[in-house]
Amino acid sequence: MTDSTRHLLDVDQLADDEIEALINRACALAAGVGPKRLHASVANLFFEPSTRTRVSFELAAARVGMQPINIEMAQASTTKGESLEDTAATLAAMGIDCLVLRHAEVGIHSKLAAALPAGVHLVNAGEGGRAHPSQALLDAATLKSRGIEPAGKKFAIIGDVRHSRVAASGLRLWPRLGVEEIRLAGPASLLPPGSPSPGVVYCASLQEAVDEADVIMMLRIQRERMDRSGWPDSAAYHADWGLRPEHLESAAPDCVVMHPGPINRGVEIAAGVADGKRSLILEQVRMGVYMRMAIFEWLFGET
Amino acid sequence: MTDSTRHLLDVDQLADDEIEALINRACALAAGVGPKRLHASVANLFFEPSTRTRVSFELAAARVGMQPINIEMAQASTTKGESLEDTAATLAAMGIDCLVLRHAEVGIHSKLAAALPAGVHLVNAGEGGRAHPSQALLDAATLKSRGIEPAGKKFAIIGDVRHSRVAASGLRLWPRLGVEEIRLAGPASLLPPGSPSPGVVYCASLQEAVDEADVIMMLRIQRERMDRSGWPDSAAYHADWGLRPEHLESAAPDCVVMHPGPINRGVEIAAGVADGKRSLILEQVRMGVYMRMAIFEWLFGET
Amino acid sequence: MTDSTRHLLDVDQLADDEIEALINRACALAAGVGPKRLHASVANLFFEPSTRTRVSFELAAARVGMQPINIEMAQASTTKGESLEDTAATLAAMGIDCLVLRHAEVGIHSKLAAALPAGVHLVNAGEGGRAHPSQALLDAATLKSRGIEPAGKKFAIIGDVRHSRVAASGLRLWPRLGVEEIRLAGPASLLPPGSPSPGVVYCASLQEAVDEADVIMMLRIQRERMDRSGWPDSAAYHADWGLRPEHLESAAPDCVVMHPGPINRGVEIAAGVADGKRSLILEQVRMGVYMRMAIFEWLFGET
Repeated sequence: MTDSTRHLLDVDQLADDEIEALINRACALAAGVGPKRLHASVANLFFEPSTRTRVSFELAAARVGMQPINIEMAQASTTKGESLEDTAATLAAMGIDCLVLRHAEVGIHSKLAAALPAGVHLVNAGEGGRAHPSQALLDAATLKSRGIEPAGKKFAIIGDVRHSRVAASGLRLWPRLGVEEIRLAGPASLLPPGSPSPGVVYCASLQEAVDEADVIMMLRIQRERMDRSGWPDSAAYHADWGLRPEHLESAAPDCVVMHPGPINRGVEIAAGVADGKRSLILEQVRMGVYMRMAIFEWLFGET
Repeated sequence: MTDSTRHLLDVDQLADDEIEALINRACALAAGVGPKRLHASVANLFFEPSTRTRVSFELAAARVGMQPINIEMAQASTTKGESLEDTAATLAAMGIDCLVLRHAEVGIHSKLAAALPAGVHLVNAGEGGRAHPSQALLDAATLKSRGIEPAGKKFAIIGDVRHSRVAASGLRLWPRLGVEEIRLAGPASLLPPGSPSPGVVYCASLQEAVDEADVIMMLRIQRERMDRSGWPDSAAYHADWGLRPEHLESAAPDCVVMHPGPINRGVEIAAGVADGKRSLILEQVRMGVYMRMAIFEWLFGET
Repeated sequence: MTDSTRHLLDVDQLADDEIEALINRACALAAGVGPKRLHASVANLFFEPSTRTRVSFELAAARVGMQPINIEMAQASTTKGESLEDTAATLAAMGIDCLVLRHAEVGIHSKLAAALPAGVHLVNAGEGGRAHPSQALLDAATLKSRGIEPAGKKFAIIGDVRHSRVAASGLRLWPRLGVEEIRLAGPASLLPPGSPSPGVVYCASLQEAVDEADVIMMLRIQRERMDRSGWPDSAAYHADWGLRPEHLESAAPDCVVMHPGPINRGVEIAAGVADGKRSLILEQVRMGVYMRMAIFEWLFGET
């Protein structure tokens, strides 16, 4: 980054050593190393509802000594016609040091970052279907915390890949960590258009994607998209694209299963898998707080 | 309790000495004894709106050093189809140490307590019409703070007893504290079905319940239930079931009047009684914060 | 004030030396002087949505050591029929030391102040179209922070003066600070009824109001009122009552432009003015937090 004020817009802005430092720091914090004290304030601006991500950032902020302010944008000044840039400039003028922004509009984070006054940091907490960098980074930290080295491994990403910002940020991160092959699988209309990048393959079935996979990442399916894709109900979708215990028999012997949450039990994932011994789902949640603490420390130059 | 992680589900789980310790501790805190510092975090999960109870728990949490997180469940992940168990497991994985839950569904608290990971505490802050243990306990602490000993006294509980979780928890608590007689009065359709327990009597009128009563507990009436019970408006209800100053003339000379709030002035209680010298209503609110501090201390083994 | 518990209801309650002390204290805090530690709690009761004012008070409270509690009144106990007086008495009983209240009803603040228990402070954070004292005071502190002395200056207040609580409190404050002339301009139906006070003049056009003005205060226009006043769209309103760069050519050479926010770009103010070198809009936001800190200190007898 050329600007002296750090923002986290997506994983592709980060140098390899920054990615490694963030992952290592999250793991160190999870292992009990004391966090930095930042003495700063952060505003959570969520234009889409999200309890889990907002609370994760809020807890992370408090643990590094930051004062979190929650702003529910549904009823905020933007409903009075104020632009996001003006809302951000106002918060900056009030002394807010960091904005955590979730927004459905692709590109709005980089546009806002360019408009922010120096010294005010921006974190992308979800950007349409394009990016969710803290999720990809916490997934990497989760693997690391379990001693799993991505290099040389086979990853399967399954479900509504097309609209998933988690998958989008992951597809930028995993190749840089040396992942050997990324298999994508899901309903045809829910796979990304165009040809896959090098190292990425499309699979015709869930089982084909899972065979010999080391890391299986299930994605949340929205009911509306399920309907439009030709699966009229959850049971039908689960039959074709829901991960069940028997699918894991042909995966790598020590494979792990991940999901960004919230999970739909019996839809994209069977309860027996979500709660099973190969599931890292709650570990992802746990590492999420530590990764967001590491991100705050990094923003303020402490990592 | 056999589990080593303490939960507060209802008063009947508590041993006599635990009840006594909680009441004494709340009174000590109210008298200025310094609270413990718990260094824990608590999430307020309110599936029914409640400013007063939520703020009471939030203030109590902050005073014992806990970080409170508010989650308005109307717009939370459960609207995305996540189960309450998964929401709770997610919050626990984030490092939340305690959940304060208000929910309309009877039985959901004990079900959730059984599913929580060890070390995560649950407080019942209102469970359908079944239980509201912190209210019953704070009522007991309010009496104690005024030097009123329940043993041998006559209590009157008046109004919509049938749907009141406050009355339900109270009916489990007061006999254990030695209350001599509990009179219940209210519209016939709003009294509990079946025969009264030993020590409980049904009264045909408000005046009959109040005669010689030492403690008079008025319950909030909901407009919808008033209508359906045959009282077409507030004035008609007030004429039959509203506590007015003249009713107190035949009560015990030093009787007290309580109400869990929020009060409907001129409906179940006349303003002159609510604001009168026998009213403990604001003292209940004051003691509520101290009782919730005591509950947090007890959960974490400090009381 | 005769009551020993201080409230901030409007600027006209303040003695001249109190106004001066508040302005000086806000400037000192902005210059880096350390704030007092109040060890008190404050509840933000906003019956009208306002992100900017609520966050400003919340940040100010935290910086003087107060614990802020946010209560969104749309879904609070008042929806259960509780009166504002009872809500306030309840919060006071819980140990809340200060209420920050925004409400559409004129007169409700002074009524509530009279009903509050001793020791509980009330701050008017917006009262219908009648008063918004912290905004007028922060505007004065903003001028002071830029070395602008109101005495002997010409002020122009332009737009929907009639419904503006910012203008209303300002019209009470500026004459006391020695402002020579206050020009009011805007659509005829949006000017206050009756004759102007001494020192106040009505202008027929925006340009007339701006000529030789030292301080230009633009007011936010609501779409509904614009429509009803005969300006069918934003462009038409902007043509007649929007402040544009060319208007400033005949103003005082070192004039400044203010706006309480949130601004409507291209409606009451051109982007080139809002973002221009004469704009103090973000400085107002910055000083707002310091003024509210000064107000909290003053309430508790520390200024």
